[in-house]
Amino acid sequence: MGMTMTQKILAAHAGLESVQAGQLIEAELDLVLGNDITSPVAIHEIDKMKVDGVFHKDKIALVMDHFVPNKDIKSAQHCKCVREFACKNEISNFYDVGEMGIEHALLPEKGLTVAGDVIIGADSHTCTYGALGAFSTGVGSTDMAAGMATGKAWFKVPSALKFVLTGKPAKWISGKDIILHIIGMIGVDGALYKSMEFTGDGIQYLSMDDRLTIANMAIEAGGKNGIFPVDDLTRAYMKEHSKRPFVEYEADEDAEYDATYTIDLSTLKPTVSFPHLPENTRTIDEVGDVAIDQVVIGSCTNGRMDDLRIAAKVLEGKKVKKGLRVIVIPATQKIYLQAMEEGLLRTFIEAGAIVSTPTCGPCLGGYMGVLAEGERCVSTTNRNFVGRMGHVDSEVYLASPAVAAASAITGKISGPEEVM
Amino acid sequence: MGMTMTQKILAAHAGLESVQAGQLIEAELDLVLGNDITSPVAIHEIDKMKVDGVFHKDKIALVMDHFVPNKDIKSAQHCKCVREFACKNEISNFYDVGEMGIEHALLPEKGLTVAGDVIIGADSHTCTYGALGAFSTGVGSTDMAAGMATGKAWFKVPSALKFVLTGKPAKWISGKDIILHIIGMIGVDGALYKSMEFTGDGIQYLSMDDRLTIANMAIEAGGKNGIFPVDDLTRAYMKEHSKRPFVEYEADEDAEYDATYTIDLSTLKPTVSFPHLPENTRTIDEVGDVAIDQVVIGSCTNGRMDDLRIAAKVLEGKKVKKGLRVIVIPATQKIYLQAMEEGLLRTFIEAGAIVSTPTCGPCLGGYMGVLAEGERCVSTTNRNFVGRMGHVDSEVYLASPAVAAASAITGKISGPEEVM
Repeated sequence: MGMTMTQKILAAHAGLESVQAGQLIEAELDLVLGNDITSPVAIHEIDKMKVDGVFHKDKIALVMDHFVPNKDIKSAQHCKCVREFACKNEISNFYDVGEMGIEHALLPEKGLTVAGDVIIGADSHTCTYGALGAFSTGVGSTDMAAGMATGKAWFKVPSALKFVLTGKPAKWISGKDIILHIIGMIGVDGALYKSMEFTGDGIQYLSMDDRLTIANMAIEAGGKNGIFPVDDLTRAYMKEHSKRPFVEYEADEDAEYDATYTIDLSTLKPTVSFPHLPENTRTIDEVGDVAIDQVVIGSCTNGRMDDLRIAAKVLEGKKVKKGLRVIVIPATQKIYLQAMEEGLLRTFIEAGAIVSTPTCGPCLGGYMGVLAEGERCVSTTNRNFVGRMGHVDSEVYLASPAVAAASAITGKISGPEEVM
Repeated sequence: MGMTMTQKILAAHAGLESVQAGQLIEAELDLVLGNDITSPVAIHEIDKMKVDGVFHKDKIALVMDHFVPNKDIKSAQHCKCVREFACKNEISNFYDVGEMGIEHALLPEKGLTVAGDVIIGADSHTCTYGALGAFSTGVGSTDMAAGMATGKAWFKVPSALKFVLTGKPAKWISGKDIILHIIGMIGVDGALYKSMEFTGDGIQYLSMDDRLTIANMAIEAGGKNGIFPVDDLTRAYMKEHSKRPFVEYEADEDAEYDATYTIDLSTLKPTVSFPHLPENTRTIDEVGDVAIDQVVIGSCTNGRMDDLRIAAKVLEGKKVKKGLRVIVIPATQKIYLQAMEEGLLRTFIEAGAIVSTPTCGPCLGGYMGVLAEGERCVSTTNRNFVGRMGHVDSEVYLASPAVAAASAITGKISGPEEVM
């Protein structure tokens, strides 16, 4: 029986000819990631292990992004702990204020994630790097600690779902609409502990940023990972950003999938996830009249150049609805600078939005736009659970940058067609 | 007996021919200010008064700047309270995310503060507007409430100290060095409940931004207010920013002062306030070797165009010291945009600093750069009290933007001459 793309990567990293779903394996890790919330916990575990340093100083990435620049004394103490650990262990990839960015935008940009890698990260959205043809998945802080110490991790080999993407998406349809559509279709546990393997002729129409968005939200369907085949676009991206060698894996023709879904991208409409689960999707023509208080454009899901460009295109020469707070958060310093060069930041500010330094910030109710009781936010982020962005009685509506920008103009959930 | 400039403004607003130090008066208010920390308290008081609305919807300014965009649920609830109050009372000058800025930078820019005004604000640094020849002072939230309800406030007429500024400051000497020098000279209670009236031929060399910085920190010497005479520069500034009529007052020739200090600006050196009081000043040649962890350039004291220009001049083409966090915070959206236009933001980011959306943020340990235990920060802000910027065992060193920028390059407290 053949293997899926994910299974092939895992087999190679476990030193095995083949693996099958459900098998327990130990795999070599190419990268272990932690952030300012999870790393301190992992470092505390490492201290308890009494090991002699980390497995490889170049294969660990510690990214200060959630509550940074420090939002309070507690986060300052956490960052200090990580900073000291990074210094003591000479960690090459420690990213702090100034070089920073949101981890899942930063690592591909820095060339630390390439096709064929096995990556674990103590953050749910570590699955993002599947866009480049890597196996990457979120783990707990204790697994991160073990990974940092040994360079290895145990996995139960996942079975897989196959998503055949066909056709060309209409104007304004982005990776976000595609993944929200999929989550709406299969539910937030529709891919529980399974690989979500994307394939089909429709992928050629998806930019790297689209693919990163889609892989990023695999976890929101419960997926162990999301993964894309490697094509010329992937190779060009990796050559531009990385010096690391990469390995291309392809699913076997006879690989087994638990289910196959075919999605005609040309039929998709802008899609919004209503509170309080990403699976509560409605197409833009079904949203009704939902007045909002805040718009957030950013996060590891949608804070990249494509996202900012499309939001700026919608907002160009227009004004944010009076009384609405609109917060734009470029995902990395490089993206911030590029968006400034292209005049996008000017467009946002002239429209009445504000631009934040790169941070996860409001996505998880951290800072930079926490919601009060009864407030509603249209957000390009990835989770709309109860209380995710603040008060337990606030609401988050997940959408694409185009929908978020259009909603910023009208003050209610709106599609880009409504304002262009 | 003649009156000081401050006394003349107060007499006019009390409808009296003359007043003298120590007299209790009731004065008409031109503006009542509150922010996101103090306004909710004042609004609660107003609710208890059961008054019918506010005295004048155009003469109240409510500025959301300290913990905005909301840093947590509590601040979100506070902002919501103010937003609803502003809406209900049709407050013209309610500034929220998008139109925002730090209150004391925003109000002069918006033309809400002009010469001859009497202004109270529920924030210590309300004394800033003395730079324009207004009487302005900080009050508690209860006084703010009474002011919003009645348009009047009681004052004990202050006596005054006279500061005769002579000569031309050397290169790199800014308003910040001047006011730190003065506070070092007279102490943090040196002007307790007194007016600090600035005069002398040296004023002609001080930009409006310099004067705003100096008046801003009058409270750090305990001053009731700080005030500058109105000259052509003041008039030009007001004409550019405001449509309101202004009234020029001059101190009488025979006005009485508790003391007169003459300061030759040409002799001043870059000055730094060591922990934990603004009066602990040392000139740059006396600072010794103080390694730092963070630099903050911003605040109501030093987040204006002059400040950003000089910081960028020092940082241009250079790199922030590895391991140091450097946070630049333009004080208003307009300043942010102007700094972007002039390429200053690019300079900061290319040097390895980050640029924050306008906020008070770290100045008062709010967010955007709170300090951990044992950390040291060189900051262009106004207070270095114990725990002001975070942990009780952290340290803040107050300095000019030039010193802050130079220190960002070397990683220790340094003057601009050291890096230029």
